[in-house]
Amino acid sequence: MTFRATLDFLLHDWLAVERLCERPRFAEHGRETFAAVLDLCETLAAEKFAPVNRLVDTEEPRFDGERVILPAATQAAARAYAEAGLLAASQDASVGGMQLPCVVEMAANAFFSKAGIGVGGANMLTSGNANLLMAHGSPAQQRAFAVHEYAGRFAGTMCLSEPQAGSSLSDITTRAVPDGAGFEAEPLGPRYRLRGTKMWISAGEHELTENIVHLALAKIPGPDGRLVPGTRGISLFIVPKWLVDADGRLTGERNDVSLAGLNHKLGYRGIPNTLLNFGEGRHPVRGGAGAVGYLVGRPGEGLKGMFHMMNEARIAVGLGAAMIGMAGYEASLTYAKLRTQGRPVGAAGKDPAQPPIPIIGHADVKRMLLAQKSWCEGALALELYCARLVDEQRTGAPEDAAQAGLLLELLTPIAKSWPSQWCLEANSLAIQVHGGYGYTRDFPVEQYWRDNRLNMIHEGTHGIQALDLLGRKVLLDGGAAMKLLAGRVNATIERAMAEPALAAFGNELAGALQHLGRATKAAWATGQPEEALANATPYLQAFGHVVIAWVWLDVALCAQPRAGRMDEAQRQGLLAACRYFFRHDLPLVAAWLKVVETRDDTCRTMHEDWF
Amino acid sequence: MTFRATLDFLLHDWLAVERLCERPRFAEHGRETFAAVLDLCETLAAEKFAPVNRLVDTEEPRFDGERVILPAATQAAARAYAEAGLLAASQDASVGGMQLPCVVEMAANAFFSKAGIGVGGANMLTSGNANLLMAHGSPAQQRAFAVHEYAGRFAGTMCLSEPQAGSSLSDITTRAVPDGAGFEAEPLGPRYRLRGTKMWISAGEHELTENIVHLALAKIPGPDGRLVPGTRGISLFIVPKWLVDADGRLTGERNDVSLAGLNHKLGYRGIPNTLLNFGEGRHPVRGGAGAVGYLVGRPGEGLKGMFHMMNEARIAVGLGAAMIGMAGYEASLTYAKLRTQGRPVGAAGKDPAQPPIPIIGHADVKRMLLAQKSWCEGALALELYCARLVDEQRTGAPEDAAQAGLLLELLTPIAKSWPSQWCLEANSLAIQVHGGYGYTRDFPVEQYWRDNRLNMIHEGTHGIQALDLLGRKVLLDGGAAMKLLAGRVNATIERAMAEPALAAFGNELAGALQHLGRATKAAWATGQPEEALANATPYLQAFGHVVIAWVWLDVALCAQPRAGRMDEAQRQGLLAACRYFFRHDLPLVAAWLKVVETRDDTCRTMHEDWF
Repeated sequence: MTFRATLDFLLHDWLAVERLCERPRFAEHGRETFAAVLDLCETLAAEKFAPVNRLVDTEEPRFDGERVILPAATQAAARAYAEAGLLAASQDASVGGMQLPCVVEMAANAFFSKAGIGVGGANMLTSGNANLLMAHGSPAQQRAFAVHEYAGRFAGTMCLSEPQAGSSLSDITTRAVPDGAGFEAEPLGPRYRLRGTKMWISAGEHELTENIVHLALAKIPGPDGRLVPGTRGISLFIVPKWLVDADGRLTGERNDVSLAGLNHKLGYRGIPNTLLNFGEGRHPVRGGAGAVGYLVGRPGEGLKGMFHMMNEARIAVGLGAAMIGMAGYEASLTYAKLRTQGRPVGAAGKDPAQPPIPIIGHADVKRMLLAQKSWCEGALALELYCARLVDEQRTGAPEDAAQAGLLLELLTPIAKSWPSQWCLEANSLAIQVHGGYGYTRDFPVEQYWRDNRLNMIHEGTHGIQALDLLGRKVLLDGGAAMKLLAGRVNATIERAMAEPALAAFGNELAGALQHLGRATKAAWATGQPEEALANATPYLQAFGHVVIAWVWLDVALCAQPRAGRMDEAQRQGLLAACRYFFRHDLPLVAAWLKVVETRDDTCRTMHEDWF
Repeated sequence: MTFRATLDFLLHDWLAVERLCERPRFAEHGRETFAAVLDLCETLAAEKFAPVNRLVDTEEPRFDGERVILPAATQAAARAYAEAGLLAASQDASVGGMQLPCVVEMAANAFFSKAGIGVGGANMLTSGNANLLMAHGSPAQQRAFAVHEYAGRFAGTMCLSEPQAGSSLSDITTRAVPDGAGFEAEPLGPRYRLRGTKMWISAGEHELTENIVHLALAKIPGPDGRLVPGTRGISLFIVPKWLVDADGRLTGERNDVSLAGLNHKLGYRGIPNTLLNFGEGRHPVRGGAGAVGYLVGRPGEGLKGMFHMMNEARIAVGLGAAMIGMAGYEASLTYAKLRTQGRPVGAAGKDPAQPPIPIIGHADVKRMLLAQKSWCEGALALELYCARLVDEQRTGAPEDAAQAGLLLELLTPIAKSWPSQWCLEANSLAIQVHGGYGYTRDFPVEQYWRDNRLNMIHEGTHGIQALDLLGRKVLLDGGAAMKLLAGRVNATIERAMAEPALAAFGNELAGALQHLGRATKAAWATGQPEEALANATPYLQAFGHVVIAWVWLDVALCAQPRAGRMDEAQRQGLLAACRYFFRHDLPLVAAWLKVVETRDDTCRTMHEDWF
């Protein structure tokens, strides 16, 4: 089955995305326009991204003291992406956008992630940056910055972390002080001077675009000159590398942001990752040191804007992880069909006089391929489901929108974490299918594995997702999100019970869901966060497996014979992948929940000096 | 706790290795001489290996058309290792050996694996090669080759795989034909000419030593010129890079073995990995093309010699995996104590006005550290236990020796596979503890993770170990090995039942062991290998977890208060690591055995065109 066929099945047969075109925002669209976008992306990814994925790994970004040098192929890929209008794919037609649903935009971007996650600079960051400005910036900020980002003239970054504050944003120390007496009269927004250091900034410096628009979190000191502890004191600023006028024309003034160094990474090497100094005086501007920044929204509400984008960013990370997994699946499937070795196991063992068979004929190789298929397609389905929830939240009827938003809050930690863990594992299996060859750089799979390892770290580490899920999301509105999810899972189970081929899976999922519910209650039974959260990560894993099992069962229901004209091999493949997940993986849930429901204290009571 | 303290506890308190000195072979040894060897290795590893572990990764071996260039540090490390006499550590004093028990030799080598698995060329390969000659070569071969390997003048390789035959040795096509009429009169052994290509040959070409002694598998054609299918036709040959006389002096004749290329690997980069052409005519020798090789042992018995060394080689791989895991554990433990971020979770959540704490204070970081400790120390204990079985097999009373040999056969697939999988996972957690920093090359953990990924592949892949275990080893002598293992596990359980602190774990292990036994029977209930072996890998995983749980329970029994004068923090650490394994990991066994005992056919019945 081709990836495209799987994607089309999930979008149309399973999620019925075409029905979104009944809504005014998407009225200009239909199955054909969606297909045209996917065709375009499939072609662009194949032509501009896939062929240079290894190149951007070996020709890592380097700093010559003045500029960050990237391969020409990165520039070409970034330009092709921008010229296709993809940076504004989901935006209003009025700013040059295509008004695509989020789910279709995500599906379109999936091709690029699969072809080369580190190719093309950081197009998706630019979109995300501009989208944030469209949601929270002033019209003047949108005109001066966002529209130029959509056009590909400017690139965007997100500057959150600092060397001493990665997971803990409340500890950032970048300071923003009003820039002189007239600071509030600035047309681009209240003008501040920023000083501080930002770490892990993707695409923080490069020559791909005329300008780079940094969105930076900083704290405005109180009257006593001190920073407010915690996240309440955080504000959001636009800090362009080059200052611009109201129309986004460069004024020629270099802003006081400079590259302190490149991070040399295990993977994801196509995208330069930087340490940036804000306001150190290397590029004094308008009379002095300090990076000029324009406040977005109101002081102290910086995280609100960021969190608005967070769900989407985390779905994008999850989808990226799923797609790197899918790339490894495709590579190892191809290899397994071509590589011959060994003989089938017969009743009398193996007959070495027979010619060797393609290794796809061996049960253990099939296991490794089927696991990859099950994890990567399951993850893809989950990400598309979540993206569809984003659309519902934005364009659905009020009650549906509210439900979608609530469900999305609950599912986001899973959408981020599950593919980051399991599609990485899929990449490891892709190496294993290749044997020794998979361990060499002559095959792509080792790079996929390295690239994918990032996804458990950025946009909130695995541990942070776990705390978010068990510490916040399951408690949301008195457990309303959990109830909502349980309702949807139970609806799927109910439908499965009517299908002889799927009823047993329905039963198993029902058991796992109940177990999850009991464990959630048991974790919080004493009301002590310290006890409840001690095993948040095993909880996250168990929760993720229940969600993916539900997604698979729902997909399998959609692939039942009467459902339509689907290809029989495709149907069998989906059902086998579903069955794999229920037989091999869902049973792990019980083991993971054990420590959760007993509030096992082995880890939290471990003393530092016992290690 | 230092690694050395853990090692000493396992060697002396748990395995009582000192008692080996009661046996004639080890009579010259005692706790002091063992300690002196360990001290020496600890120092050498710290001085010559650890400081250059990153260097040998970045300065990968390269071929200048004539020679393979390695960093000078590799040469220095290799020389220091050889000069310390470690190449012959377990050999007879008569060939310059130390007559160390295998378990002490392995423990000594652990320091080097932990400090830099790819540093020092491939010393352990050289030992293994020479040891094989001591066991299966003629006295003349030992004198001409092995003794010079022990002295560090010659290096050794193992040439088994070919490009088309990695896991499937029965398919090798390297041919060996008698070298002229007088071929049997050669003092160094019957002389053949070899032609063929060998792949994945570690240290196949370098300038570290005067000569390289290849031990190569090849087939001697039958009278019809055809090769015998299967492994029965395989013979073993010594193929030196430079020909030598009876005393191992170089004759100046270059043998017809040449480097076809270097493999560029994901990790383990310090050791050049090569594709070698045997007999292609690049270096015609003694009148013609064809690599001169001397038969070791009898024709057709080549694999017997190799398999003799296989158990030890696989223990060494497992121990290497455990040690790379341990290196990551140490690095992440150090980092977690120094890095501050976040606040403790209190009843009212977190107070951002408090100063951040070292991340080792967070439950999830403790979980990641404790998991690493549990997996890596558990793996280390298993490897030492297996090495102790090797000693028992070699120097024990006849019945004990036979039992040890049988148990070793059963445990070897676990000793090879379990650390390869779980200590790799430990390395991933070491990255995770470091957050974004762990993803950079400024910290050592990403390299550990890359290095360790090899171990599931070489010396028999994971899948091959699984087939060996469920397809051969558990059936051995009508299940005698399984009975023997069960007896030992039950003995540990019985002792645990008398310890209030451990009785619950004893119960759990008893349940898991019984489950494993039932699943083994159920897998083979139909007698069809195809059905039994379809889920051999989940079986391997479950079996491995039962074995490690047993090892931990046995170690924990040894760490009970009355046992001696051990450090209280060390005791608590071992008990916590044991408890971690029983609470968090052993419950997974039930999930893995599910597909085994139902002979689930999801994977094996998957059609190629459903993927």
